[in-house]
Amino acid sequence: MGELIGKKTTFSELQCSKNLAATEDALYVVGGKWTLRVMIALLSGHTRFNDLQRTIKGISARVLSGELKDLEINDLLKRVVDPNQKPVAVEYIPTEYSQSLKDIISALADWGLKHKKKITTHE
Amino acid sequence: MGELIGKKTTFSELQCSKNLAATEDALYVVGGKWTLRVMIALLSGHTRFNDLQRTIKGISARVLSGELKDLEINDLLKRVVDPNQKPVAVEYIPTEYSQSLKDIISALADWGLKHKKKITTHE
Repeated sequence: MGELIGKKTTFSELQCSKNLAATEDALYVVGGKWTLRVMIALLSGHTRFNDLQRTIKGISARVLSGELKDLEINDLLKRVVDPNQKPVAVEYIPTEYSQSLKDIISALADWGLKHKKKITTHE
Repeated sequence: MGELIGKKTTFSELQCSKNLAATEDALYVVGGKWTLRVMIALLSGHTRFNDLQRTIKGISARVLSGELKDLEINDLLKRVVDPNQKPVAVEYIPTEYSQSLKDIISALADWGLKHKKKITTHE
């Protein structure tokens, strides 16, 4: 068990409700079960539907399709059709704006690594 | 619409699958609908059950109770009983280890603020 930190709190400088509200806004957009997973795959260079589905283990085509539509609505990716290929090639390209998710994804990945180390050391 | 970033990707330096796996590990623990909301409230100094339920709008007592148990199992909070009070007072105190979630919460809150500004400016 870790030590307790008592009542001295991390967020004493910020109003809890403000923090909660801002986090809610973020989770509303990227808090879905698959959303960040799809964004990581996109940001890692997977841009084709089948490639994305292969990369994101366990996602169904229906769910992936819905995620991609939502991400486009939120300006996190752009659907690009290349008419020079037959059959036409569709690519899902992360937008400049989607780079702003990098901090969230890095923080989660860092914590995931740390937590895994902690669990595997203690058990 | 933001500009496209083409195929130059944020995570080119990291293997996508590694990033995905670490993020999965993190989301497994803190990716639940309410988990981070509960942690923010705890880290902001809300330590009593009723106080937490008031702070986290919309959470049911049953769900909050389950979240608190899971967080204790993951060493993110400690349930402390004060036997000097009648009826005995139970407090949920964030552990030292839970401070490690601060980066994730800050990144989400920052992004939530940014995204809200973007939406309210564009629509």
